[in-house]
Amino acid sequence: MIRIGLDMMGGDFAPYEAVKGVLAFFESAPQDTHLILIGDEPQIAKYLSEYSLSPSLYSIIHASQVIEMHEHPTKALKEKQDSSIAIGFHLLATEKIDAFISAGNTGAMMVGSLFSIKAIPGVLRPTIGAYIPREDGSLGLLVDVGLNADCKAENLNQFAILGSLFAEYILNINNPKVGLVNIGEEEGKGNLLAQATYPLLKENNQIHFVGNIEGRDILLNKADVMVCEGFTGNVLLKMAESVHDIVKRRNIDDEHFNRFNFEAYGGVPVLGVSKPVIIGHGISSSVAFKNMINIACKMIETKLTEKIITSFSTIS
Amino acid sequence: MIRIGLDMMGGDFAPYEAVKGVLAFFESAPQDTHLILIGDEPQIAKYLSEYSLSPSLYSIIHASQVIEMHEHPTKALKEKQDSSIAIGFHLLATEKIDAFISAGNTGAMMVGSLFSIKAIPGVLRPTIGAYIPREDGSLGLLVDVGLNADCKAENLNQFAILGSLFAEYILNINNPKVGLVNIGEEEGKGNLLAQATYPLLKENNQIHFVGNIEGRDILLNKADVMVCEGFTGNVLLKMAESVHDIVKRRNIDDEHFNRFNFEAYGGVPVLGVSKPVIIGHGISSSVAFKNMINIACKMIETKLTEKIITSFSTIS
Repeated sequence: MIRIGLDMMGGDFAPYEAVKGVLAFFESAPQDTHLILIGDEPQIAKYLSEYSLSPSLYSIIHASQVIEMHEHPTKALKEKQDSSIAIGFHLLATEKIDAFISAGNTGAMMVGSLFSIKAIPGVLRPTIGAYIPREDGSLGLLVDVGLNADCKAENLNQFAILGSLFAEYILNINNPKVGLVNIGEEEGKGNLLAQATYPLLKENNQIHFVGNIEGRDILLNKADVMVCEGFTGNVLLKMAESVHDIVKRRNIDDEHFNRFNFEAYGGVPVLGVSKPVIIGHGISSSVAFKNMINIACKMIETKLTEKIITSFSTIS
Repeated sequence: MIRIGLDMMGGDFAPYEAVKGVLAFFESAPQDTHLILIGDEPQIAKYLSEYSLSPSLYSIIHASQVIEMHEHPTKALKEKQDSSIAIGFHLLATEKIDAFISAGNTGAMMVGSLFSIKAIPGVLRPTIGAYIPREDGSLGLLVDVGLNADCKAENLNQFAILGSLFAEYILNINNPKVGLVNIGEEEGKGNLLAQATYPLLKENNQIHFVGNIEGRDILLNKADVMVCEGFTGNVLLKMAESVHDIVKRRNIDDEHFNRFNFEAYGGVPVLGVSKPVIIGHGISSSVAFKNMINIACKMIETKLTEKIITSFSTIS
């Protein structure tokens, strides 16, 4: 039995979109999954009562508080012990749930991931990536996209391993190609960080390194895992998101650009922490919630965390 | 009389597109401009003979060598003294021409700018920006886009001044808004460089600083001059360029996205060097060449270089 904790109070449309996501998830008939819905019980129960969902499929755990989007992460987590996010991390740390998902305060989710469940031994810095839609219909992974604004070469080398394992087990990409985001194709190009990272990636036998990739390659499939520090990654991701906004504003209906709707993907896991945690987009839709629950299931089924632990125990 | 030197051998379609660009430039009936066409004289003369251009409008200066796109910049400039780029910088340094334009080897153009004509006193690092098309039809400037992959806060502060003067005099933007490319809106956000740069921009009374801008704001008009180090800027620019490729591939015909054809803009000047130098895109079309000649004229007419010299003499 897989037990997944879901913060029902996270996201701009809480808890309605989360409830719809739960229903959509169960419609796809998953086997042996129990959802633990964390949040305002009366509200959740009221929404759920409109549908005929078997009570055996879920439990509700009441949270009297909510960490709002604008709140200071560390302070809020400390002061709001009865918030849905704090309860979620408590349940995860005490093994009452196997994974925790929230589309709430991103900072609080990151602080919770790093301090209540901690990094896997050997992982210097956990990371968070983003899906990048490609024209062939597949998804790539850009990593890091903002958790680590300043990085050392060793961090990027670890992001490459973490991203490769995610691409292999969750995105089903066999022997994923790893590219270093850079400003030139040849070895030796780039800023000091990229120059220092290239040889580490080249010598890393846990990944399939294909060399440097440039900005024009990010939206193509030259590499499946695209590695950079979180400053560049975040700015790139947000620019790509804005392309979707512009496309919509200009009434362009194109199958590929429609896939630039990053909200639909739900969230991405925090990679390198000791339990599955998925952080969703603030404007997560029901589809996003459903996708996040599915990704959590897949992380558990494929034992991604264990695979990461094994990888990093080999290194150290 | 404005004398503009044009490298006819630069770009993938040399010298044909350059010749067509020269013709297009003179069709728009500029006043008092003489073009000095540098390159293989027989070839240039042959192409020009097909058109009835008054010989008083141009001179041809023969160059027996060409620096190819793949050559090592410093080495090539040193060894190929009779190349069109080497001759161009020689003419510029000795005041035989007032501006020099090339769509040839970018590295050689940068090396020539920095070593044969030098930075303006007070400018720590010259920079190169790129036009960013906005939905309202105007252009913004992203600076730096690759000349300076590693920067200090002082460099970014100077790019803001250089970019503002360019935006004001060449893009005709009154009191241009300067934004710091960052991963959060509030002061204090970002990597160490952005955190150190913010207070410098805030206190800089030569610019109109509007705060941080995020990746999603780059393609909008939140800021006219968008400042970042050359690593992030280059990756962003190349991603934006690739959006145009994807749009074309998908047969989308949209007025705004058509303006993502960065080749059409020609080139951008190297900002902060003591004479006007414009570096073009390798695949520059005749329109690009025409635009570059027009920008060079405008730089000379508006005395942009003198304005920059004055700005930096005030600082130091």
